[in-house]
Amino acid sequence: MNNYGRLFRVSIYGESHGKGIGILIDGCPPGLELEEKDFAADLLRRKGGVKGTTPRLESDAPLIKSGVFNGKTTGAPVLIAFENKDAGSADYDSLKDTPRPGHADFTAAKKYSGFNDYRGGGHFSGRLTLGLVAAGVIAKKIIGPVKVTATLVEAGGDTDIERAVNKALEMKDSIGGIIQCEAVNVPVGLGEPFFDSVESMLSHMMFAIPAVKGIEFGAGFGAARMKGSECNDPIIEAGGKTGTNHAGGINGGITNGNPLLFRVVVKPTSSVSLPQRTVNLQTGEQVDLAIRGRHDTCIALRVPVVVECAAAVVLADLTMQNK
Amino acid sequence: MNNYGRLFRVSIYGESHGKGIGILIDGCPPGLELEEKDFAADLLRRKGGVKGTTPRLESDAPLIKSGVFNGKTTGAPVLIAFENKDAGSADYDSLKDTPRPGHADFTAAKKYSGFNDYRGGGHFSGRLTLGLVAAGVIAKKIIGPVKVTATLVEAGGDTDIERAVNKALEMKDSIGGIIQCEAVNVPVGLGEPFFDSVESMLSHMMFAIPAVKGIEFGAGFGAARMKGSECNDPIIEAGGKTGTNHAGGINGGITNGNPLLFRVVVKPTSSVSLPQRTVNLQTGEQVDLAIRGRHDTCIALRVPVVVECAAAVVLADLTMQNK
Amino acid sequence: MNNYGRLFRVSIYGESHGKGIGILIDGCPPGLELEEKDFAADLLRRKGGVKGTTPRLESDAPLIKSGVFNGKTTGAPVLIAFENKDAGSADYDSLKDTPRPGHADFTAAKKYSGFNDYRGGGHFSGRLTLGLVAAGVIAKKIIGPVKVTATLVEAGGDTDIERAVNKALEMKDSIGGIIQCEAVNVPVGLGEPFFDSVESMLSHMMFAIPAVKGIEFGAGFGAARMKGSECNDPIIEAGGKTGTNHAGGINGGITNGNPLLFRVVVKPTSSVSLPQRTVNLQTGEQVDLAIRGRHDTCIALRVPVVVECAAAVVLADLTMQNK
Amino acid sequence: MNNYGRLFRVSIYGESHGKGIGILIDGCPPGLELEEKDFAADLLRRKGGVKGTTPRLESDAPLIKSGVFNGKTTGAPVLIAFENKDAGSADYDSLKDTPRPGHADFTAAKKYSGFNDYRGGGHFSGRLTLGLVAAGVIAKKIIGPVKVTATLVEAGGDTDIERAVNKALEMKDSIGGIIQCEAVNVPVGLGEPFFDSVESMLSHMMFAIPAVKGIEFGAGFGAARMKGSECNDPIIEAGGKTGTNHAGGINGGITNGNPLLFRVVVKPTSSVSLPQRTVNLQTGEQVDLAIRGRHDTCIALRVPVVVECAAAVVLADLTMQNK
Repeated sequence: MNNYGRLFRVSIYGESHGKGIGILIDGCPPGLELEEKDFAADLLRRKGGVKGTTPRLESDAPLIKSGVFNGKTTGAPVLIAFENKDAGSADYDSLKDTPRPGHADFTAAKKYSGFNDYRGGGHFSGRLTLGLVAAGVIAKKIIGPVKVTATLVEAGGDTDIERAVNKALEMKDSIGGIIQCEAVNVPVGLGEPFFDSVESMLSHMMFAIPAVKGIEFGAGFGAARMKGSECNDPIIEAGGKTGTNHAGGINGGITNGNPLLFRVVVKPTSSVSLPQRTVNLQTGEQVDLAIRGRHDTCIALRVPVVVECAAAVVLADLTMQNK
Repeated sequence: MNNYGRLFRVSIYGESHGKGIGILIDGCPPGLELEEKDFAADLLRRKGGVKGTTPRLESDAPLIKSGVFNGKTTGAPVLIAFENKDAGSADYDSLKDTPRPGHADFTAAKKYSGFNDYRGGGHFSGRLTLGLVAAGVIAKKIIGPVKVTATLVEAGGDTDIERAVNKALEMKDSIGGIIQCEAVNVPVGLGEPFFDSVESMLSHMMFAIPAVKGIEFGAGFGAARMKGSECNDPIIEAGGKTGTNHAGGINGGITNGNPLLFRVVVKPTSSVSLPQRTVNLQTGEQVDLAIRGRHDTCIALRVPVVVECAAAVVLADLTMQNK
Repeated sequence: MNNYGRLFRVSIYGESHGKGIGILIDGCPPGLELEEKDFAADLLRRKGGVKGTTPRLESDAPLIKSGVFNGKTTGAPVLIAFENKDAGSADYDSLKDTPRPGHADFTAAKKYSGFNDYRGGGHFSGRLTLGLVAAGVIAKKIIGPVKVTATLVEAGGDTDIERAVNKALEMKDSIGGIIQCEAVNVPVGLGEPFFDSVESMLSHMMFAIPAVKGIEFGAGFGAARMKGSECNDPIIEAGGKTGTNHAGGINGGITNGNPLLFRVVVKPTSSVSLPQRTVNLQTGEQVDLAIRGRHDTCIALRVPVVVECAAAVVLADLTMQNK
Repeated sequence: MNNYGRLFRVSIYGESHGKGIGILIDGCPPGLELEEKDFAADLLRRKGGVKGTTPRLESDAPLIKSGVFNGKTTGAPVLIAFENKDAGSADYDSLKDTPRPGHADFTAAKKYSGFNDYRGGGHFSGRLTLGLVAAGVIAKKIIGPVKVTATLVEAGGDTDIERAVNKALEMKDSIGGIIQCEAVNVPVGLGEPFFDSVESMLSHMMFAIPAVKGIEFGAGFGAARMKGSECNDPIIEAGGKTGTNHAGGINGGITNGNPLLFRVVVKPTSSVSLPQRTVNLQTGEQVDLAIRGRHDTCIALRVPVVVECAAAVVLADLTMQNK
């Protein structure tokens, strides 16, 4: 299922080293102002280039292929395409028979009977999150006063993120991190229980982002150590404002008007230059694999904008359902 | 959205203090042996009655209303209904204007413009998980050799769960817990990226279970403190077996043949007899609310079978999609 | 797929000679007045009893099992159940190996590997349309000023329908008919192209009604003999009113504000008492089969209310999507 | 909803006079041989150029943008794009305020609050059927031995189609037609009742094709004049072969192994050069509109391949669900 959403529906496509990647957005309301430069700021946040991220720098220029006329959305599907230019396929050809630990190489080959495009992870590449960012830029225009912000709050177990990155660079290893996401000005009533609770929909989306391995709302795992009388948020105003926010702004799967709050964990970048044990699928023999090429020491540095935009997509869909 | 699933589709209905609750299962393969006593063991595990759980004991007898003929499923929809008998509505009537902290009372009233059935949480009651258990019993017959097991591994921050419950009972407070779920004999290839990764589908379902506030796969939040070279699971056999299982059996959103492993956190039962601060929605005044009636000190004691059955529903749907 | 709809979602279940049949409605807005007697008038129209219809008369009392509280819908799923009482299963047991021509006996047995409930057509029985009528009664409350009416305009090729029925009764044969359905006060804008045109959604639903074998909108098949200058409806008011209505109230898959108009054909009742040729599936030999039991000479007499209610379900769903 | 399908899912996009149009196909099985020249034959059949069709001749070269690697599908989404080159927008600008009778101009403007791309019908243009043809080319590879064929059997009420076209050209008017579609080698068991009968799914798709206003299966509307004993198809072999095929190869919404047979009616091309009455939406005054530009006298000449390919898409999706 490369589709997500009920009313604001996104369909993702593309491969890391193919012709390009992109996203098709159906159900986008008419009349939103949209031009290609609107994507620039969020795409820049996602881009490699700072210390700890890959030196692969694509221009990543979004092309609006449909659904916009005279600078405004028309109500017809919006296709946002990105072309691939800086793809060094040769780096990956040798990996076909030796799946990289932590990557989708093995599972994709099995699921798709060996027909998957394995170059740079193919359809499983983090590059596809460009599409999520593009959809999020549009989604933010739909959710209006709601403002979503995601930040990397911890990397490699350290809240001093620069220090953590330097340490990992020294060790020629990679690290992960924790991203916190908050949305303010959220109306009461988003979420469609029983099965489409706000937590269900946000987590469904977040686990589509490569490398995310956990999510918690409000007090999250910490709630397991609290008493009910502590964990319950006292309601202090008829509008629903609570004294604490251990629920992360959600009760019974529905937003309660307080800030929406969740955290996701991003595992360390799977590609490391240190040798790792894997198997040659042809011979069945164990081999040591050192991954050359350009990688992110801490991919988590680039993920906050993806989390933020992906959350906006979810909120746009829930907002449209709550009319 | 009271529906979940693409090929194995479940639709849930009912209220805590209405005529009954149940689940309608569409897409169930024909020829599965099914009779009402098949549900007994898992329903018993969910039932109240042991120390730390509610004294409300319903007979909870499942009624197969359709889709079964001569003791086997027919391929037509299977409706499993449960009648409500032991419902003390009077306990709840006074709560209409004073939403209970931690419950869906406030959000449901707002979302449904005050028309929601507020008695005992109505459609938001944990009682609806009876339906999930029933669907899971059927799902387990579909996933065949795959065996799912969920266990409460920690309550109130203590791995000695009896001690934790006793302590909470003494304090007249409630506690939460952490449930670990494992599935073995999982084939390689379940999961439908980009958006329907195994993690996406399992988390979507888990957050439908009332009181679940977090989920993590494999190393989960612990991965944020690991190095890539540690976190990556070395592949040691051509069949995909890995030396460690920090990925929780999932790479790129697809099962890799190793045990599927995740943990969910269940917050403390929201209903506590200690007074809690809330607001009278009519007058806007703050009031203290002590919740009478029958409650679970540690609802987490009853949730493992729900997690297990709900996971089986997800795996059944993914298994059918992977044909 | 026993489910239909995007926002107003119905799920149907049950068998002709099982415990009962029914429909589960999800996405029903809160606050609609609803009680069991609201269904009486439309259920009566569907009932057998008049000349040309089956003497099988069930009480067909709808039971509201969930989603209604204090006489109003709550926003939670509404389950409407009907119990089976007057089911003479013995009539059908002999038919297991000799599929009735024109019925689903053969196809259901093959598709469900012989596990289907074959008694009285099981899940394929026209009795399931009770659920569509029930859902339509609710849908009519949603679409408000829009008024849908369906009428049998021709039976057995004759517009004098009583005469046609008498003739068929004499011949101990069955006849079909043509039902015309019109909706007035339809707003401009219903329909969700490209794929969910109004015609697409209505036809999708109509072909779920057993025995429907064709549908046409406005001029329909007659348009094949018209010239463009004739067939195009001149627009005579800025509100969209047209001089003729060959388009049946739909342009580009979207309602244009003129009356919505379509016709469906209902084939003759498949069960006839005259001997018909079929095959014994066990022996492979051809045999002659005379169907005993209670049948409708002209099932089309009972279908208008089903068409009308089913159309209301479609319009309710499209109305909710058009907000 | 610009998406169709449950397992073989297509999403359509684009506008007649925008940058291009195309289709995104998700759920395509891996390992199908696919290259751009595979589309040539069917695209040629859809192309204008013969007498009675538009002189607008686009190169219509399909571009495979994703989902294919080393000449085979990978299991990832396949995007097929077509660029627009020969678009004369100036012809259409004057029509903004005077909606063309029979077109979607009025309804699209109302539904999308005037933000729709009105040039050449925009997203409502028949040009979008290029995408359906492309998807059908792939679908045909999935349905394997099943062979679908669609033919124009009648135009302007005449089975001599050349004569009908000549007559219409003389009158400077347009005509419609009837297309018959047959599929042979269809397995028993396609179709997913209750709501996703084969007729439901095929009609849903057919009414997405612009200008289709009716569909009938097998005897279709003719069944309204038959007796049951005539209309029922005698079963003459244990494999399901019937003596006649009034059911069009479908019983109870499921294919019965006989040829699948249906007919659709295509209304006359809406664009005619004769003056037609419409309204100026700004002034509310009635005006006469003569449509200049390049049009098809008989668009039905170009539709058979669209019907055929669209039917293949439906059958591919049902085939995948029937595994």
